Amino acid sequence: MAPTLGRRGFLGYLGTAAAGTAAGAGAGVVGARALDADEPTAVGVRRTGEAVSPWGAHQPGIAAHPGAVTELVALDLRPALHRAGDVEALARLMRVWTTDVEALTAGRGTPGDTAPWLATANADLTVTVGLGPRLFDEPWGLTPPRGFGRVPAMKHDRLDDAWSGGDLVAVVSGRDGTTVGHAVRRLVADAAPFAALRWRQTGSWQPHDAQGRPHTGRNLFGQVDGSANPRPGTDLFDQTVWVKDGLWAGGTTLVVRRIRMDLPTWDELTRSEQERSVGRDLATGAPLTGGGELDDVQLGAREEGRFVIAEKSHVRRSHPSTNGGRRIFRKGANYEAYVDGRAEAGLLFQSYQADLGDQFVPIQRTLDEADELNEWTTAVGSAEFAVPPGWREGEWMGQSVLA
Amino acid sequence: MAPTLGRRGFLGYLGTAAAGTAAGAGAGVVGARALDADEPTAVGVRRTGEAVSPWGAHQPGIAAHPGAVTELVALDLRPALHRAGDVEALARLMRVWTTDVEALTAGRGTPGDTAPWLATANADLTVTVGLGPRLFDEPWGLTPPRGFGRVPAMKHDRLDDAWSGGDLVAVVSGRDGTTVGHAVRRLVADAAPFAALRWRQTGSWQPHDAQGRPHTGRNLFGQVDGSANPRPGTDLFDQTVWVKDGLWAGGTTLVVRRIRMDLPTWDELTRSEQERSVGRDLATGAPLTGGGELDDVQLGAREEGRFVIAEKSHVRRSHPSTNGGRRIFRKGANYEAYVDGRAEAGLLFQSYQADLGDQFVPIQRTLDEADELNEWTTAVGSAEFAVPPGWREGEWMGQSVLA
Repeated sequence: MAPTLGRRGFLGYLGTAAAGTAAGAGAGVVGARALDADEPTAVGVRRTGEAVSPWGAHQPGIAAHPGAVTELVALDLRPALHRAGDVEALARLMRVWTTDVEALTAGRGTPGDTAPWLATANADLTVTVGLGPRLFDEPWGLTPPRGFGRVPAMKHDRLDDAWSGGDLVAVVSGRDGTTVGHAVRRLVADAAPFAALRWRQTGSWQPHDAQGRPHTGRNLFGQVDGSANPRPGTDLFDQTVWVKDGLWAGGTTLVVRRIRMDLPTWDELTRSEQERSVGRDLATGAPLTGGGELDDVQLGAREEGRFVIAEKSHVRRSHPSTNGGRRIFRKGANYEAYVDGRAEAGLLFQSYQADLGDQFVPIQRTLDEADELNEWTTAVGSAEFAVPPGWREGEWMGQSVLA
Repeated sequence: MAPTLGRRGFLGYLGTAAAGTAAGAGAGVVGARALDADEPTAVGVRRTGEAVSPWGAHQPGIAAHPGAVTELVALDLRPALHRAGDVEALARLMRVWTTDVEALTAGRGTPGDTAPWLATANADLTVTVGLGPRLFDEPWGLTPPRGFGRVPAMKHDRLDDAWSGGDLVAVVSGRDGTTVGHAVRRLVADAAPFAALRWRQTGSWQPHDAQGRPHTGRNLFGQVDGSANPRPGTDLFDQTVWVKDGLWAGGTTLVVRRIRMDLPTWDELTRSEQERSVGRDLATGAPLTGGGELDDVQLGAREEGRFVIAEKSHVRRSHPSTNGGRRIFRKGANYEAYVDGRAEAGLLFQSYQADLGDQFVPIQRTLDEADELNEWTTAVGSAEFAVPPGWREGEWMGQSVLA
């Protein structure tokens, strides 16, 4: 496990990160259109209404503002590939998917597409691909990003295999479910010689406010969700998310958690109980210590001798200062489903971090030990993926880590 | 059963319908903004980006261009209400829902809303409410719209109770699943003293083309779906959809069908086989006899002695000239689901017509007798509802038919 990434580590990154920012900001959008108008939100960089380019230093879906629909689909490689540790076959699949992603995000059908007209430009479509932990075991022998591995069991987890694990993930986000669903079907169909569907989860987000401006968005508890994120386009974001150097430079790691939310018992709380458990104002997302949604919480602030931000509140437990300076970049998608005839609602949670073992795991442990929200939330699925860097035209996804 | 609505009947409607059009077109959008810019598509009138007013001669969601997400939710009234035929209680529920719909479509939380911030303005939210057939049986004794009743069994149907029937329906459409899902949860929660959830189905649509212009949209076969609709804002639309006079004037009837589509076997067809079964070009939606998407098919056209539009093609079987001049106004939403561990895809089909018995039923019989598409499509759910007219500020939904 890598050493703790403290303040000193952050400062050490600045030189590289600043150079990386300009490239990263430009990489996400096709054409020469100025990005000044695209003010980054807490959950991503707003799109300009043009197709998101598949090419760049990083896979563009991570820093992009979320679409209204996000589907996450995991696949397992065929047993024969596993037995052989067949990196060549995996590379062929990556080439197939590269062609698919380049077509779909531009609004074109894939080669062999049976309904190519369902691909549409300007659907804000992004596809992010990652590789699961088995590919770094024998006989594959691929080199993982630093700190990557399976997330250890947490005491509040109630994981269901049906929503956990996987050798490959595709995170497909866009403006409508028909476009997104079509992209998922093509990716799954074209992967068939190599891999089979393991799970598929669909969620929604409100990416814009009533004036049509991109905003952070809310989960089904009504909470503004993602305010404390490092802002895409900043050095802090780059340091938090992207692997700095080595084979995986420009890549990241992804943890997908299916977090069931108990809406009926949450609804029984008073509003002040709800706000106290989070540490934020429900209406605005602002910290209970004041300021605006994007201002930092004042963890030391006291009222009548007691902390304004409660000891076990989510914002305190997840705050970098409670976690040795560690951060993640999180995105969410709300889901409602019927599982075994029972209504289930919750959040499809994505956590991106350069170092899974040194960022996600210790923060999650802090939350698992004591977080008021554990009372109303339960992880029922969990999966982790190493996310290769972006690729350039003529290259293919994962080329730098597989070739 | 009412007499056939032929050409003579259509002409007879013109005077009334023309007067109704101006009111209807203006009713759907709040404020004085000109609607000239809102060119109607085959599946609805484009919104202007302002909240859709809940008030008007008709419930506004019917003629409105579909949202990216549509949820259909059916409820059953409590047994005690049924035993008593308690119209007073039903009227109380309609008042509660009226308050809810007026708030939600304006972007406000409902009274007692536990997460009012999930309501958002400019989400293109519409809610259409209807009453199921049991309410017109004893002991309720309500007077139904002419021709309203249960759709008779069709030989190709494989109906599942899980997706069929219901005493009440709410069709909730909007820009994103979080807003739509929140509205559905509030409606279901507020109905709890009166009614319980029977089924809930969610679908998606691509309401806009790559240039952001509203267009007809496609189903999961890739077909442009809805081109032959009477165009909202025309006399033909008004004649097709709205009950002309009597208690239900300004109302309509709705048939909801869950149509399973066998994508794998459809995908095995050649493109020309697919196009022949529909009678339209797949890429453009234009009739195989030429012209543009919205041009009528030339059913008499022949090539080498054979009809260009095949005898059993969907456009011929569903065409008004094959059905004594009868028409419906259809809307669709694509769904993908896992049912009993098996992937299922299809179309949540809504058919609106003034007279269910004289429009939907005979057309559906014609299709059931012979329609190429029956090979790849199966109705697995069916429900019918009488849809009250719109209401004015200070009134409540269903007032004219219940009070």
